Order: sequence, then structure tokens, then C-alpha cells
Amino acid sequence: MAKTNQSGTAGSAGNNNDIYNIVLLIVDIVVLVAKFWIAIVEEVFKAFTTRPQSNVAGQFVLITGAGHGMGKEMALQYGALGAKVICWDVNEQTNSQTVKEVKQAGGTAFGYVCNVVKREDIVELAAKVRKEHGFISVVVNNAGIMPCHPLLEHTEQETRLMYDINVLAHFWIIQAFLPDMVERNEGSIVALSSCAGLFGLPNLVPYCGTKFAVRGYMAALAEELRLKNPQTNVKLTTIFPYMIDTGLCKNPRFRFPNLFKLIPPQEAAASIIEAQREGLEEAAIPRRFVAIEKIGRLIPRKAMRLVNDFLDTGVDSDKH
Amino acid sequence: MAKTNQSGTAGSAGNNNDIYNIVLLIVDIVVLVAKFWIAIVEEVFKAFTTRPQSNVAGQFVLITGAGHGMGKEMALQYGALGAKVICWDVNEQTNSQTVKEVKQAGGTAFGYVCNVVKREDIVELAAKVRKEHGFISVVVNNAGIMPCHPLLEHTEQETRLMYDINVLAHFWIIQAFLPDMVERNEGSIVALSSCAGLFGLPNLVPYCGTKFAVRGYMAALAEELRLKNPQTNVKLTTIFPYMIDTGLCKNPRFRFPNLFKLIPPQEAAASIIEAQREGLEEAAIPRRFVAIEKIGRLIPRKAMRLVNDFLDTGVDSDKH
Repeated sequence: MAKTNQSGTAGSAGNNNDIYNIVLLIVDIVVLVAKFWIAIVEEVFKAFTTRPQSNVAGQFVLITGAGHGMGKEMALQYGALGAKVICWDVNEQTNSQTVKEVKQAGGTAFGYVCNVVKREDIVELAAKVRKEHGFISVVVNNAGIMPCHPLLEHTEQETRLMYDINVLAHFWIIQAFLPDMVERNEGSIVALSSCAGLFGLPNLVPYCGTKFAVRGYMAALAEELRLKNPQTNVKLTTIFPYMIDTGLCKNPRFRFPNLFKLIPPQEAAASIIEAQREGLEEAAIPRRFVAIEKIGRLIPRKAMRLVNDFLDTGVDSDKH
Repeated sequence: MAKTNQSGTAGSAGNNNDIYNIVLLIVDIVVLVAKFWIAIVEEVFKAFTTRPQSNVAGQFVLITGAGHGMGKEMALQYGALGAKVICWDVNEQTNSQTVKEVKQAGGTAFGYVCNVVKREDIVELAAKVRKEHGFISVVVNNAGIMPCHPLLEHTEQETRLMYDINVLAHFWIIQAFLPDMVERNEGSIVALSSCAGLFGLPNLVPYCGTKFAVRGYMAALAEELRLKNPQTNVKLTTIFPYMIDTGLCKNPRFRFPNLFKLIPPQEAAASIIEAQREGLEEAAIPRRFVAIEKIGRLIPRKAMRLVNDFLDTGVDSDKH
């Protein structure tokens, strides 16, 4: 009897527990649905309003690959906004030229030679930079290379170098500067992906791999930061530029140059800085390309390919 | 006068040319729109019919990482379908065990020790395999590792190793076996991405990079093959498995184990083989995850995060 009684009580307690759990789950679901729609309305509202831009004046902004192209343009424009620009480049001469031009325009800049292929160089230089300047507010992982030819013509050396510069260096740099940002719960990391990180493009097979990798690790890092601190204020911004006129893209091909055209690096740099200051998570240049990717992914590939072939826009091999 | 006349003629010819070009463009657009909708109807129709599966009996199927987990299961199942299985693994003992089990079940298998980290080993072994067996119909880039902890705890060595195995080895293997496939205009390359190639996941920052890279380079390779030969019959299949019960995923966490659960490797292997034989370009395991990603990308991240937090499913760090 005692046994039956006990198990009866346990069963009843179990039932109560089940009911309690189900009620809790229903409350959770109701709260989720309400919050979900509020979030969507908020985001739609934000899309139609001007986002506030953070102030970078007086703050330290580190840019890799600052000696050339978009990196140089960003250095000049951040400098013009009053930021103190830390310029990293493997090429001392072009890097010094950037620093000189920032200073000539009345800005503040510091140049450091850095080969981002070598983790130990990054670790050492990062320690030096942090010691000399303190907190770095914005880190822009910009340096990148783009060998452009069929996969079968890619050498081991250039492929490894591409992954070292376009992906792995980002990790070493983030490992060096993120802890300070997490500690202060502020700061911004910008990573240069590419439209080749949204779409698969011929002649750029390993390159698309690197740029999708940037997109993937940044999305993962956002979740990791959020898991540690749901209220994290460290901003992550992934940039997807279309073809920019910096010399990286040697043989662009356009059927409709009015629709798709090489974007001047000045315009691209301004767009990146705007995205960083607005704290956008993903920003293509032009902005509409992220939406095109999202909608394009809903359409069967066979149909999308007809559109691609019609537009006939891309990058020809750099070997022919 | 003569001059005016000349320029008048040139102008008129120019106008005719413009009109001709506009008419051509309009025809192009009409054809595009018609083909586009036909392609969509076809794809929708295909989604509701059973796709024919290619026959693998008597064909050579190469699998990397065949000594363990999904690679082993695929070897056994391809063997049971009558394929001649070429098993590659860095671990001679487990690889031999797989070969033995395929043979015990009445199948045909050949084992080779291969460290996919070393390109020269792959090139040499690929030449040997092609010499001994001839044309390899199916190549499955399966070998992979998954260090699982916060980015700040990732060492250089494990990160480099992960990119070597999960991404770069794929390139070396494709470079070795794709030319034969292109020449014969047949064959199939399968690449193991992951749900970490669809979504950013905490504790897996560099890993998500590798799996997004796989997704990106496979999409690019598909376009590259199509550019060379619009009628290409070489199939590329990218696989996005959810958490599979192979030991790779050490600390899975589920709030709703009925909705999301560890998938047995037998089931995952069968799903991969089905996707390869059907010639699917992208296939998640379970299949619905690709659609979830596509729809999820349309929803603002803030709203999607509420859903993620509600589901509370992921992988905890392997260090704690």
C-alpha cells in the first residue's frame, strides 16, 4: 500500500510537473511570438529611417592593407573624420605614403609594416600598438588578394597565401584586439568579404571560399559574443563590395555597364565607414546586393542562372 | 556640306543600329522571362516528384576520411550498392577495418593511407589510384575536423590544420580528379559542408569559416564548369549535415530533442548517397535545413535570434 501510495504521489507530482512545464512553454511561445513581431516591425522601421552614426573623432582605427586601394581610401576618410588612423601594410613605401597623405590633410596617422601572413608578427605588433596607443576602437580587416583564374590553374602557393591573408590573418588580428573590446564592451570589427562571399563566381573558386569563410566566421563570432553577453555592444560589420576599381579586379566584364559598373574606391570606402558607424551587421556595396542574394537564393538555381547569363557580368581570368 | 552629309549618314546608321540593338535586347528579355518561368515550374514540379538516382554499381567511388563516422558508413553503403570503393584515411588501422567490412558484406574496396594535409601526397596517391583503377566516377571530400571552443582559445596550429583538411585538401583532390571528369563529361564531386556552412554558430567561429568556404567554392566551381561547358554533366553536390552522432560533435545541447536530435551516421550516409545519385546541388540533412536557411535569411537577424534563443540548441565548448 505504502508503495502504491508513493508511486501514486510521484505520478501525481509528475503530472503536475508536466502541466507546469507545458504552461511555461506556452508562455515562452507567446512571449517569443510577440517579441518576434516587435523585432520585425522595429527592423522594418529602421530600414526607412536614418540610422545614427557613431562618432570616430579622437578614436583609434586600425586598417590592414592601408597602402593601397580601399584601405588607403578608408585611412584618408577616417583621418578626415578626426580618427587617429593606424595603418598596417606589408609595403612600407605605399603605407608611408598613406600616412603622409592623411597628415597632409590635417589628420593623424601612424604607419607600421606588417606581413599579416605571419601570426607571430601580428601578435608582436598588436602588443606594440596597444602599448603605444591604448584602446583600438575600430579594426578593419581589409588586406586581401584575389588570384583570378580557373581552379585547375591555381597553384598551392597562391591558394595558401590567399587563405593566410584573406581569412587566417583576420583570426590572429581579432584574437589580438577583441579581448579589450569585450572587456570595455565597446568597439567595432569590420571584415571585408566580397560579392564573391554572396555568390559563386567562375575564375574565383578558392577566392569565393575565402570570402564565404569571412561571412561565415563573422556570423559565428556575432553569435559567440552574444552567447557570452546578450547585451554585447561590440559591433561586427561584414562588407560585401561589388567590383571596386582598385586594380584587384583586372578583367571585369559588363554587358550593362549602367546597371553594374566598377565602383570608385572613394565611394566604396565611404560606404564601408558609413556601415561601420551605423553598426550594420551586413552591408554590400551597393547596399542592394545583400537583398539580391537573399531573394536570389529563394529562386531555383536553374532560373537564376538564366538571369546571370543574360546579365553576362563577371571577372575574366587574369592569365589570358 | 560633304562633312555634314557624312555625319548625317553616320547618325542615321547609328540610329538604325540603336534600334536594332534595342529590338535584340527586347527579344532577349522576352526569351529570358519565358525561360525563367519555365525553369521555375520545372523545379517546383521536380520538388514533388521522385528524382531518378544514377547507378553506381561497378563504378569507382573515392571517399576521404573513410576510417570513421560518416565516411565509413558511406563506404559500406556504396559497397552494398555495388560500387568499388576507394577508401582514403590518415589512420591505416581504421581504414583497413572499413575495407574489411565492405568486403565482408560482399562488396569491393581498396584502402590507401593518405594525409590530406600534404598536397604532394595527394597528387602522388591520386596518380597511383588513377593508374590502378582508371576513371573515378564519384569523389567525396568528407574528411574534416571540428575544434569546438571560443575563437580566443583557438590555437594557430589547430586553426591551420582545420583549414588544411576542411578546405584546402578539397582543392588538391578536385584538381587531381576533375580533369578526367570534365574530359568524359561525367562524374560527381561531393563536398561535406555542414549546417555550420549555413548558419553562424558559437564555439565554431573558424569552423564555420571552413564550412561556409566549402559552400562558396562549390557554388563557384559549378559556375566555372558551366562557363566552360553550358551542357556540363559533371555533378557537384554540397552536403549540409546537422549534428551527426559520430563523435565529432562532443557536447551537443538540445532544448527540444524531438525537433532537433543527433542523426545516426547510417541515416546521414544514406542521405548523402541519395543526394549524390539524384545530382542535387545542395542537400541538407535533414533536407529542410536549406529551406530554413533561405527563409531565415529573409527575416531580420534580431528576430531570428529570438527564435534561436528559444530553441536553445547548439554545441558547447569541448574544453569545459
